[in-house]
Amino acid sequence: MELYLIRHGIAEEKQPGLKDEQRNLTKEGRQKTEKVAHRLEKLGLQFDLILTSPLVRARQTAEILIAAGVSSQLEESTHLAPDGQISSWLLNWLEPRNYSPNTQLALVGHEPCLSSWAEILLWGEVKASLVLKKAGMIGIKLPEIGSAVGRSQMFWMTPPKYLL
Amino acid sequence: MELYLIRHGIAEEKQPGLKDEQRNLTKEGRQKTEKVAHRLEKLGLQFDLILTSPLVRARQTAEILIAAGVSSQLEESTHLAPDGQISSWLLNWLEPRNYSPNTQLALVGHEPCLSSWAEILLWGEVKASLVLKKAGMIGIKLPEIGSAVGRSQMFWMTPPKYLL
Repeated sequence: MELYLIRHGIAEEKQPGLKDEQRNLTKEGRQKTEKVAHRLEKLGLQFDLILTSPLVRARQTAEILIAAGVSSQLEESTHLAPDGQISSWLLNWLEPRNYSPNTQLALVGHEPCLSSWAEILLWGEVKASLVLKKAGMIGIKLPEIGSAVGRSQMFWMTPPKYLL
Repeated sequence: MELYLIRHGIAEEKQPGLKDEQRNLTKEGRQKTEKVAHRLEKLGLQFDLILTSPLVRARQTAEILIAAGVSSQLEESTHLAPDGQISSWLLNWLEPRNYSPNTQLALVGHEPCLSSWAEILLWGEVKASLVLKKAGMIGIKLPEIGSAVGRSQMFWMTPPKYLL
């Protein structure tokens, strides 16, 4: 199956009185994310499901992707919140579902989680060697059988500026 | 500095009497590579130098990039021929030149060399976890000081279909 790791768009700065999980996309963040989403749709991307972190900035990013027509299915998962562990997500979310080999699944979440998850899937360890910009994405092919950890392959990684 | 690893376009099949180094891009390979080159130019890519493998299919790919205006400088290097070693290229070609930190250098070459070189720059070892299609590219940022091996970062990797 193919896994698309998508980082949320540009969000409000942290400030006193504003909970981190409540930070909205800024106007610029929303516009750039909309452009990216429309370009993905034009390129033919179609996700069977978008799974999003429950934080507002991720949820809003996922809703923009849905509105652009790249998927019609949206779910939240606390495994995708900041500090989420891929081992926990694999064990408790992905593996019990037994998806078909041609499933296209998009995850909307946060850094440094997403690029670390990508490294764990590709190499089995984290070296901070992937730069994932806000509203950028990584495309990874998981093996059909056996553990995905250290056995997956990357076929795409892009900052938003090359999708505008 | 930024390093762009670009794989040559689709070339003629191997056949008796045709030397591997003489294989030309096919008509389709030429057309797709031209589209990719024009898209790179439109995205604002500008390389200070394109360094190409001396094999015909790589040289033709590099010439298409030059014709599209993404660089005006082209050199051949035998280090980029199939089976080239990154250690040899770094030691004998890159390091003696002492490029400035904002140099943008493109290498046109072959698989599995290019994706292996990328993995060595990012992780220090090869696990065959990057899928680089013909006329696809990888963008890597090298550290300003010290060895690039295992200390570089990837910011872009794309198959040609997302550049057409």
